[in-house]
Amino acid sequence: MKSAILRLLKDRRPEFVSGEDICKSLDVTRTAVWKHIQSLREDGYEIEARTNAGYSLVSAPDRLFPGEVLDGLSTKFIGRQVYYYGGVSSTNDLAKDLVQKGADDGSVVLAEEQTGGRGRLGRAWFSPRYKGIWFSLILYPPVGLSAVSQVTMVTAVALALAVRKETGIPVGIKWPNDLLAGGKKLCGILTELGAEMDKVNYLVVGAGINANQERLEFPPEMRETATSLKVELGRSVARAGLLQVMLAEFEHWYQFWLTQGFTAILSKWKEISVSLDCPVHIHTLNKSWEGWAEDVDEDGALMLRLPDGRLQRLVAGDVSIRR
Amino acid sequence: MKSAILRLLKDRRPEFVSGEDICKSLDVTRTAVWKHIQSLREDGYEIEARTNAGYSLVSAPDRLFPGEVLDGLSTKFIGRQVYYYGGVSSTNDLAKDLVQKGADDGSVVLAEEQTGGRGRLGRAWFSPRYKGIWFSLILYPPVGLSAVSQVTMVTAVALALAVRKETGIPVGIKWPNDLLAGGKKLCGILTELGAEMDKVNYLVVGAGINANQERLEFPPEMRETATSLKVELGRSVARAGLLQVMLAEFEHWYQFWLTQGFTAILSKWKEISVSLDCPVHIHTLNKSWEGWAEDVDEDGALMLRLPDGRLQRLVAGDVSIRR
Repeated sequence: MKSAILRLLKDRRPEFVSGEDICKSLDVTRTAVWKHIQSLREDGYEIEARTNAGYSLVSAPDRLFPGEVLDGLSTKFIGRQVYYYGGVSSTNDLAKDLVQKGADDGSVVLAEEQTGGRGRLGRAWFSPRYKGIWFSLILYPPVGLSAVSQVTMVTAVALALAVRKETGIPVGIKWPNDLLAGGKKLCGILTELGAEMDKVNYLVVGAGINANQERLEFPPEMRETATSLKVELGRSVARAGLLQVMLAEFEHWYQFWLTQGFTAILSKWKEISVSLDCPVHIHTLNKSWEGWAEDVDEDGALMLRLPDGRLQRLVAGDVSIRR
Repeated sequence: MKSAILRLLKDRRPEFVSGEDICKSLDVTRTAVWKHIQSLREDGYEIEARTNAGYSLVSAPDRLFPGEVLDGLSTKFIGRQVYYYGGVSSTNDLAKDLVQKGADDGSVVLAEEQTGGRGRLGRAWFSPRYKGIWFSLILYPPVGLSAVSQVTMVTAVALALAVRKETGIPVGIKWPNDLLAGGKKLCGILTELGAEMDKVNYLVVGAGINANQERLEFPPEMRETATSLKVELGRSVARAGLLQVMLAEFEHWYQFWLTQGFTAILSKWKEISVSLDCPVHIHTLNKSWEGWAEDVDEDGALMLRLPDGRLQRLVAGDVSIRR
């Protein structure tokens, strides 16, 4: 009911809607309307009330409420089911729990804050309240284990294009799966999965986008390596709107991948990449490499040309671009 | 206490142990001893009781009780924690639950019967009560996603060698992960996992060994394609003893793999294989292939030489060997 009232106010915005109209349209009592208006105000919606005129929505808060995400969402199945939380340990962990409970394909798990946000290899991911878009997608693609890295690359392409479209920032992809702006990290992607050898049982693709942090809101040790959309743009972004574009872009590329295969996406990925055709330093679990980042293969592995001329295939690692 | 009494009877077998000796050794009452002896008899242990002489163990039942598995087990960590069940849906499913609860590395989940035993791609695996060895290993190897197929191959090698050692049956491996005897399926392996791209969170390696089924105990549709150790040998096998050898062999090869890498194991795998250097028919999810099974690569993929001379790499599929 609350979301129906919000819907009504949004549709008529900036006009006033009388309490009586709301009661009639939605078949509720005046008292119920008043309570829901109060509750919306508590959520951060600024609603003006004027005697003999009714209610008018002045502004919506920058929150990722399901109503805000679903309102105007253009997707068929991605994000159609929203699990929204104020604070969680990690949206990926929660998503894995929801998989066990049978969550739908394309469900999105959203949190305003992660207290235990994670990046690759269990590294902490700084996820302060209301400042970023911290979310995980639940997917059940009918593919084998070897296709998993492709989904991470589909995600990187989709999110990069969405951010470019919404903000104009020329974000690039750094292998294997970071989005950079001005050489600093804007977004990380963490794919987790359950599988048998022949068949993926589920994928949880988590992403964290630094949206509205000020430079000084990053911990000092991150200020040289991380950035946010706000830092890059000089203004805040509306997170729900950007999320909608990201979900739509993801659905487009994910369905393209499922139906057309990976080739075109790999080309797109290479086009957006900022860590190809350049000298790189790569740290893997047990070793350091230096060389020329020559190509990425169908499995997402980096083909590194070593100083001695040999070509080394790397499936994972941390890249720094040498300038 | 029950297992301590059993231990004592086993150690002194075939001699009699007086009730008084048991009481003194283990510091229990005569009534307690009597109750435990009764309980052992209910488990199927044949125990003779003679006035003025005491108790003597005549025979142990063919059960996979933790006491039977642990008694004489030579491993360091594989099978040191045993989860034993009369009947379960699937030991792999149970093992995945136990992973969530923090089960130890090397834990083994055992069942006398699986009502929902599964093979690759959700196919049913016939797992009748007391007739086979249906078990799953829980492993946390510090490896990336690309190494998972190697663990399945380590398992196939270890189980094949264990069966050869214990029974003399010249079992062979059919790609990707079946053990055959006389061209028929003796054992299947199903590896499941939780992971992120760079790091396996857990592996559950399930195996089902047809041990003591008679030929006519297989459903009619399986009689041409499946076999058991009993069918091959003409006699029953002691399942707990064979399981001990399999666990020990697995630990050996698994540790070898962790410390020395995959190369030697791949050679061993090829040596035991019965589906290499022969003409094969392969069904994958969407396609049928015919050709010459030429090799298996480091990732466990089959290199199939097609009639037109091209080499096709296949990561999964069902092989039939053309004769």
